[in-house]
Amino acid sequence: MLIDRLSNQDFSALASLYRTTLLESVLPFWQQYSLDHEHGGYFTCLDVKGNVYDTDKFIWLQNRQVWTFSMLYNRLDQRSDWLDVASHGANFLAQHGRDEQGNWYFALDRQGRPLVQPYNIFSDCFAAMAFSQYAQASGDDHSKAIALQAYKNVLRRQDNPKGRYNKTYPGTRPMKSLAVPMILANLTLEMDWLLPNEQLESVLDQTIHAVMAEFLDPDSGLVYEHLAPDGSILDCFEGRLLNPGHGIEAMWFMMDIGQRRQDMTLINRAIDTILTILERGWDSKYGGIFYFLDRLDYPPQQLEWDQKLWWVHLETLVALLLGYRLTQREDCWQWYRTVHNYAWSRFNDPNHGEWFGYLNRQGDVLLNLKGGKWKGCFHVPRALYLGWEHCQALT
Amino acid sequence: MLIDRLSNQDFSALASLYRTTLLESVLPFWQQYSLDHEHGGYFTCLDVKGNVYDTDKFIWLQNRQVWTFSMLYNRLDQRSDWLDVASHGANFLAQHGRDEQGNWYFALDRQGRPLVQPYNIFSDCFAAMAFSQYAQASGDDHSKAIALQAYKNVLRRQDNPKGRYNKTYPGTRPMKSLAVPMILANLTLEMDWLLPNEQLESVLDQTIHAVMAEFLDPDSGLVYEHLAPDGSILDCFEGRLLNPGHGIEAMWFMMDIGQRRQDMTLINRAIDTILTILERGWDSKYGGIFYFLDRLDYPPQQLEWDQKLWWVHLETLVALLLGYRLTQREDCWQWYRTVHNYAWSRFNDPNHGEWFGYLNRQGDVLLNLKGGKWKGCFHVPRALYLGWEHCQALT
Repeated sequence: MLIDRLSNQDFSALASLYRTTLLESVLPFWQQYSLDHEHGGYFTCLDVKGNVYDTDKFIWLQNRQVWTFSMLYNRLDQRSDWLDVASHGANFLAQHGRDEQGNWYFALDRQGRPLVQPYNIFSDCFAAMAFSQYAQASGDDHSKAIALQAYKNVLRRQDNPKGRYNKTYPGTRPMKSLAVPMILANLTLEMDWLLPNEQLESVLDQTIHAVMAEFLDPDSGLVYEHLAPDGSILDCFEGRLLNPGHGIEAMWFMMDIGQRRQDMTLINRAIDTILTILERGWDSKYGGIFYFLDRLDYPPQQLEWDQKLWWVHLETLVALLLGYRLTQREDCWQWYRTVHNYAWSRFNDPNHGEWFGYLNRQGDVLLNLKGGKWKGCFHVPRALYLGWEHCQALT
Repeated sequence: MLIDRLSNQDFSALASLYRTTLLESVLPFWQQYSLDHEHGGYFTCLDVKGNVYDTDKFIWLQNRQVWTFSMLYNRLDQRSDWLDVASHGANFLAQHGRDEQGNWYFALDRQGRPLVQPYNIFSDCFAAMAFSQYAQASGDDHSKAIALQAYKNVLRRQDNPKGRYNKTYPGTRPMKSLAVPMILANLTLEMDWLLPNEQLESVLDQTIHAVMAEFLDPDSGLVYEHLAPDGSILDCFEGRLLNPGHGIEAMWFMMDIGQRRQDMTLINRAIDTILTILERGWDSKYGGIFYFLDRLDYPPQQLEWDQKLWWVHLETLVALLLGYRLTQREDCWQWYRTVHNYAWSRFNDPNHGEWFGYLNRQGDVLLNLKGGKWKGCFHVPRALYLGWEHCQALT
């Protein structure tokens, strides 16, 4: 549904688009195709029609699906079938997901045997999010303990996320990453019911400072992915890297905090940043938002730099709707229209459900799949749920 | 120069194309732009015109450039300017390239300080190749010792190439990679002047067995990238991966051994395999050889799967010319024409020298560079030198 075919700013039609797609296309897709009824957990490698093409179980995506169905149960509707889907994954993960020290593996095989060691801090991060929501949904104390343990892992590992698997030689060019404070902001808000208020506000303060005063460069108005520990800019591949979708997602996390704290200055700075990133990251030739760019316009290392990814566009839609909801800024709405028309006409698959994940620069489907190692049941339903909520509030 | 504009099979015109491009376009490009006269070693991050856009020094590429200029000095012409270029890199590497145990780092900064730990067996591999050629060129005994030390590192590490940086959980799904026997075949032939004959022939026997009896699947005729330790096929992303350029390059290494041993059976099996890979790996819509495929036609993990890379096409040209030289098989020549016309018209840059590295599926330049983290002074000059040699032999 292109916006041009809507009366301008018909938020009730938009709300209905988000709701219908969530409830009738996306959630049924995962409910129907992703459950492994034999060994537990979820299949995430699903082709365009939902057929399983690989049975490995990636911890990010297992936890994210537990999170999604628990969150919708908690916030939208206490449907027992949604809680069943969440339990299906939570039980599998509680049994197989962690090593003896409570660190979360990166991947398991279909039976739940570890394939890849716990080298990745985001496995713990998504486990904390998943089990926090699931504990709320199920009322299960053991799940609450799992969430808190995972949250502590994240805090403990934040200064050296890869631990002993870190291949960087110490001292030559130390670096810190946007991903850590960014995810901590989102995770901490998620866990607010489990954390002492003082700890929560102090972590939020830290993340706002890191994202808005360090990773957001005042000169360019862009968000950088990697900085020196003292916050200075680095001239190397990692230091020059721009990831527009990541920066924009970080900005709606900031707006979430701004909304909680009724901080309109923070909200407007986040919106300004989103628009600056869009001006830089939008492909004026073929449309869509680039996956990676180099801030000095050098060739990036990532060969996939010019591709158009589902999550980049969905997070942008959420960010722009939230921005418009909080400020009614016309520039938010204009960019929303542009991104909406691009994304809804290309990623959404009304024939078989769910969204495509990966388009080439020209906007054609690059990988004919609905899920894989990195795409599962997360960005699409989260964005559809939030988009629906924002549009509803705007009607 | 398209073959259609040549009289068919005019190998003298082809020899001249390879020679001219090597001597007048490619080598001058690296001689003019890549030398770091301040800190030693080479810049490899060079834009389309040769401007340096990043100064980090990647050990693979540093060693490969030492190898290229030493090899050409040894085999083609004892030009002192070529030996100077080789010495320029060899001195820098001998001083900065290794840790205290003699393991080769993966990357250094411009000054030679280590950036990335020695996690990668191929750093040692390319060091062995580089210092073996350089020792021959320079007559330097210290370089010979460095080459032998690196060769021993490779043999010692071949069963666990990533050592302590290996993130695979032990036991669940052990796997071995084509890259190891493949590179050992090439490396061992390179080092024949330094190795006892018995050791050399025994390593060659092992690599032929691994490549032709294990990684080459008799049913499909394709070369797989990863197998279970007992040689059986794995149904997982790594197990399904096809890398057509890699398989074809492995086959010309096999033909090299076949030529040395006058083994026409080996040579013809290698050619059959190349042609089978080409039938499967050729993009019938846009032309060119895909970078990655899945043997069951599932979506591959690699987002760059449909791109067309310089080295894939150059190694294929070398393989087909060598195959034709050794057998005069008409099917080799027909495929050579097709790949030649595709590659020479798109990758070669007669305006600024060198070849482009990365094209999108449609055949347009994807990254406007001549060198980066993975593309240096290696595949292009090696293939041009070998192509010239093969065409010369065919005149």
